[in-house]
Amino acid sequence: MLSKVLRLIRDRWPRYLEEVREFLRMPSISATGEGIEETASYLEEWLRERLGAKATLLRYGGHPIVYGHLNESSPYTLVLYSMYDVQPVDPIDQWTSHPFNAEIVEGRIVARGAVNTKAPLMSMLLGVEALRDSVGIPVNLVFVLEGEEELGSPSMPKLIEDRRRELSAADGAAFIIATEHERGKPLVELGCKGIIFLELECRTSTYDVHSSLVQAHYNPVEILANVISSLKGVDGGVKVEWLYEDVVTPTREDLEYLEDLMEAFPLDKLRELYGVRELRGRGRDLYIEVFFKPSINVDGIVGGHYGPGTKTITPSHARAKLDIRLVPNMDPSRTLERFMEHLSKLGLREIVKVKVHDMYDWSRTSPRSPIALAAVRAYEDLGMHSYVIPTVTGSAPFYLFTKALGVPIVAAGPGYGGRAHAPNEFIEVDGVRRLIEYTAALLL
Amino acid sequence: MLSKVLRLIRDRWPRYLEEVREFLRMPSISATGEGIEETASYLEEWLRERLGAKATLLRYGGHPIVYGHLNESSPYTLVLYSMYDVQPVDPIDQWTSHPFNAEIVEGRIVARGAVNTKAPLMSMLLGVEALRDSVGIPVNLVFVLEGEEELGSPSMPKLIEDRRRELSAADGAAFIIATEHERGKPLVELGCKGIIFLELECRTSTYDVHSSLVQAHYNPVEILANVISSLKGVDGGVKVEWLYEDVVTPTREDLEYLEDLMEAFPLDKLRELYGVRELRGRGRDLYIEVFFKPSINVDGIVGGHYGPGTKTITPSHARAKLDIRLVPNMDPSRTLERFMEHLSKLGLREIVKVKVHDMYDWSRTSPRSPIALAAVRAYEDLGMHSYVIPTVTGSAPFYLFTKALGVPIVAAGPGYGGRAHAPNEFIEVDGVRRLIEYTAALLL
Repeated sequence: MLSKVLRLIRDRWPRYLEEVREFLRMPSISATGEGIEETASYLEEWLRERLGAKATLLRYGGHPIVYGHLNESSPYTLVLYSMYDVQPVDPIDQWTSHPFNAEIVEGRIVARGAVNTKAPLMSMLLGVEALRDSVGIPVNLVFVLEGEEELGSPSMPKLIEDRRRELSAADGAAFIIATEHERGKPLVELGCKGIIFLELECRTSTYDVHSSLVQAHYNPVEILANVISSLKGVDGGVKVEWLYEDVVTPTREDLEYLEDLMEAFPLDKLRELYGVRELRGRGRDLYIEVFFKPSINVDGIVGGHYGPGTKTITPSHARAKLDIRLVPNMDPSRTLERFMEHLSKLGLREIVKVKVHDMYDWSRTSPRSPIALAAVRAYEDLGMHSYVIPTVTGSAPFYLFTKALGVPIVAAGPGYGGRAHAPNEFIEVDGVRRLIEYTAALLL
Repeated sequence: MLSKVLRLIRDRWPRYLEEVREFLRMPSISATGEGIEETASYLEEWLRERLGAKATLLRYGGHPIVYGHLNESSPYTLVLYSMYDVQPVDPIDQWTSHPFNAEIVEGRIVARGAVNTKAPLMSMLLGVEALRDSVGIPVNLVFVLEGEEELGSPSMPKLIEDRRRELSAADGAAFIIATEHERGKPLVELGCKGIIFLELECRTSTYDVHSSLVQAHYNPVEILANVISSLKGVDGGVKVEWLYEDVVTPTREDLEYLEDLMEAFPLDKLRELYGVRELRGRGRDLYIEVFFKPSINVDGIVGGHYGPGTKTITPSHARAKLDIRLVPNMDPSRTLERFMEHLSKLGLREIVKVKVHDMYDWSRTSPRSPIALAAVRAYEDLGMHSYVIPTVTGSAPFYLFTKALGVPIVAAGPGYGGRAHAPNEFIEVDGVRRLIEYTAALLL
């Protein structure tokens, strides 16, 4: 059966590759809305015309969710979750080719969305089509393609409520992505961290004040710097104990998969991928810290004069953005409350305004769930050895499946790519082909 | 004698006011160079054609210094120091009228340079002209009009070396400015603070890194936040003792003038002028802190994502700008060395790059020096009571006169203005007239 599908994919490969690149050339930046509607409509039409699915755009106040059904009268139903939005492209001057040209450079497609997650999304759809056109699809499919993942998926909880009956009846869910951090080492990802994305703002005057008067009042940059340094030290370590109070990972089961994790996910590669100057640790300890412990990170800060030359002012206001990553068994609301208490203890709760942009819970799927086993088998059918890892470091709305619906979800797929959210994001061309094949194999 | 000059000034007043506004309409931003050459040439020509002075543009690698002589065969020589450059106009959207329109709004000229220091400069020149055209100028004058004060006066030390003989022969120097912080309370300013303006840069990777990996490496914003918070607390207080080790102010003499200072310089006015939300103290203690103690201030910071929405990255690099203000008997080089030692103790000397933009020493002139006494007398001749204050909070290259040349210098002049370096900088129209009169009175 599989060989017939693979033959068809090889026949169509040049066309399929072009189709993935074409999709990457459509901007779909959820932060600004650029290209979002066009991309959503394109996908809706694709599901209908290419797969013969029932498809519609669901709106819950934000960017549309492309929602589709392909009923194959099977006793089994699988949800295919994915996201069609991407992060902004700045700093644009660091890209070696335009982020929406999808140029092929040394065997890699370079584009915003190349790895996260538009090339995998289109590959998944092409895989479904190839399967249907060769041997037929043996399961019912529900497509959930959202356009707000990079904004914290604000519409997804509403979708889950709205379509609870059909979605909770599914046997499993999959998010097809390019999981290889080391070429040829694909993953079955069982979980992810939660996240709280915060913006802090402090204003101490209407206008910037002449800096010679700084002792007379308060400097908002200095206030935010004190908030940040109360959370993180010069060594990059978290300074607040409350962050760890509900943490139970790594569990004994997590540690069983630690070798897999270390082999599949070379942290040392950060030097090459991002030009990281220095790592904070090595070996087991570093992996446990990065994969199984919560984190706090400052995503950006701005305040006062930052152009060329000098300007002697005490800034009127400053803003900083922070993300906190959560692991089992932390509770996002409780962590947020702890953060607010922390501000209170610094005496800054009234002075520093806190805006909560996103809040995701963490998620875990059992390695013994049918979808996890199927994901491993699909790799084997294609002659690949895969690594099962309990969690990724990133965040995704998987908790909506596992916790709100009780449907196990995995993220899986071959393919090597990198620089998600950064300039020169890429995916290897060969990975695109294998993603198409993998989707077909998973559904068989 | 004086009444004859004042009559002439009143006759010419409408024309003189327009001339000051015209001068304010010429941009002269030293940070970007915009309008600098045009403004310098305009002044050179003005000195030559309107005053019959010898004038030339001196260049020492930066923006020109307008240097002029008016030899009246007097045994006394006075240096008139001023600056024709201004700070950038951003944030432009906070101006109620264009910063280079010099519009008159409710009795005030609103413009960049209105108070700091182009309206006073032109008023001073007009005062010299009015004196010459009425009763004659009884002293020799040397004009030193620099265009880099807002950049830390990098050419001034070279000028001092180059023209040491003529300049050190002067009996005194004056910087005519609008000194009223409370309307009708003009000052004779005897000194100023020194300043070190630093830029800190920290880079930990080439590209921004996905924020879920933050525990694996270092966040440059967090590193700079730790540097800042090690210097300043949430209460705005300085946390490092080394800043104070050579401080000898307030002296007993300083304290004799403290009442004057408090009466002339209402710190409470910061609420109205800049919309300052909260003052850090009150009364004597606050004045001693602001006028007689060194300070550290963060002028700006930038790093990572600061646009709308969310972007989950660990920034590749961050920059912050700092100014340190110095009082007697601190030594700028020694303070800078202490700062570098401080970075070393934090373990960050190799990681945080430090660029020194400016370095000014502090300056003091004796209240019993002839120029200080003349400055007080000039106010009295015009029927004004003035306040003698030992130092201002700001910084100027006065040390080049007092320390390098041994020439006492004062800053003096009536007129009420505010929001230097900020949007809607202004000077009262009436102050412009009185600045013209004061210059004439000072030279008589």
